[in-house]
Amino acid sequence: LKNLIASIFLLSGIAHAQTQLLPVLPQPSAPDPVAYQYSTIDALLAGAYDGDLSVNQLKSHGDFGIGTYNRIDGEMILVDGAAYKAKSDGTVVLAGENEKTPFAIATSFSPNYTRTITATTSLKELEEQLDSQLPNKNLFYAVRVEGQFKQVTTRAISPQNKPYKPLAEVSKTQSVFNFTDTSGILVAFRSPAFSKGINVPGWHYHYLSNDKKSGGHVLGLTLANGVVKIMPLSNIQVKIPTNEMFANTDQAVDRSAELKAVEGERKK
Amino acid sequence: LKNLIASIFLLSGIAHAQTQLLPVLPQPSAPDPVAYQYSTIDALLAGAYDGDLSVNQLKSHGDFGIGTYNRIDGEMILVDGAAYKAKSDGTVVLAGENEKTPFAIATSFSPNYTRTITATTSLKELEEQLDSQLPNKNLFYAVRVEGQFKQVTTRAISPQNKPYKPLAEVSKTQSVFNFTDTSGILVAFRSPAFSKGINVPGWHYHYLSNDKKSGGHVLGLTLANGVVKIMPLSNIQVKIPTNEMFANTDQAVDRSAELKAVEGERKK
Repeated sequence: LKNLIASIFLLSGIAHAQTQLLPVLPQPSAPDPVAYQYSTIDALLAGAYDGDLSVNQLKSHGDFGIGTYNRIDGEMILVDGAAYKAKSDGTVVLAGENEKTPFAIATSFSPNYTRTITATTSLKELEEQLDSQLPNKNLFYAVRVEGQFKQVTTRAISPQNKPYKPLAEVSKTQSVFNFTDTSGILVAFRSPAFSKGINVPGWHYHYLSNDKKSGGHVLGLTLANGVVKIMPLSNIQVKIPTNEMFANTDQAVDRSAELKAVEGERKK
Repeated sequence: LKNLIASIFLLSGIAHAQTQLLPVLPQPSAPDPVAYQYSTIDALLAGAYDGDLSVNQLKSHGDFGIGTYNRIDGEMILVDGAAYKAKSDGTVVLAGENEKTPFAIATSFSPNYTRTITATTSLKELEEQLDSQLPNKNLFYAVRVEGQFKQVTTRAISPQNKPYKPLAEVSKTQSVFNFTDTSGILVAFRSPAFSKGINVPGWHYHYLSNDKKSGGHVLGLTLANGVVKIMPLSNIQVKIPTNEMFANTDQAVDRSAELKAVEGERKK
């Protein structure tokens, strides 16, 4: 499979003037990598902010991921097996092993491709560059960007109290942070269109600075240069919460407009 | 988990005048059952009729399921570990182990609940009865109905040739069969609303007569009496095809109207 996809990549003429393709290295990873997903984006949008999956349990499914914590207490950045929490007060802490998540996606990160970006690029340009590398938009992708950033704008949401309001309402009160001249890691997932209802179709990035002091859900950025590592995922395992909160959410309504409001660029 | 759900079921007052609840039997099944899904309904609707998953591979993920075969050559009924093919010429055959499917869902069937239906009921009434048993509509369910039917209407589609047309067009030429006074098995799945794009939200039934001579995708029925076995599924594993046909499908369009046309009751 990986060889096949690698061939497609090589045949698709992906050289950019501003990028440099590094050799495709065969990886000794599992033959059929799985993205593990807990709960659904539609449940989160509806206000199902309490899950039953612990950080420890999530880590058993991967060392790389994004999500949030119960009560929407901050943004999760799971990287190199450590789960960080970017909080609404601007701090970043390691999450406790027994803290729980209402929504997360994770995988055992084993990239198939590595490339470099040497020119300054906005979030929109970064997405266009990444998309140009992915001829098959009907897979999931986990992507790690290690970069120098001229600027990163993130958000984090403060912990909510019951009764929970829908995420589109809650996100209006989010904290927004601007970091300049920062180096760190983007933990990104690209989800295919057919995953609507379950995950965020398209790109979804969380950021963690190398000093582990800043991060969050990315609303905008200017990337000076960086290394991009790409892992296609042709398996997705969805764990559906069996708690009452999830069971009672109305997931039959179309929440795509709410999702756009919550996930889109909201620079201030 | 099963005990929890069983408690919810017992508490929800599910006794119908016309039905009889049998004891809930503890099952020695795996603790966290998985539905295995190959490809997506949106890809099938778009005309991605050739998959790479063999019948043999599908069986490694379950003994109970529904789907179709490459080129949409008939309807798949996977029951008790045997994969039947209800063809558009009205015959039913066992599928070869190396035949392939472009779309299927399967599980290792281990029901949590068994109940009986003693009164005559239409497909609509059957769905209402089943839905009344399921307080949590945000799970997947595998359901097996062993029944005496006054009437079953099924359809099957003839094998297509490339270039493949969308399923909503192809299904206009489907063969429709009416069976009367037949006994057999309904292999059914209920998919939650958030699975739109991936599977068929709501109920989806395939039928196989006990003599293995008739069957297909169910468009309508009159059930005289039967035994219903219900298995909640809180894990769904989606295997995404990596072939070019799947990669090239446009799954960003809303195909819910097409799906309704293809899957709905189409009695003649």
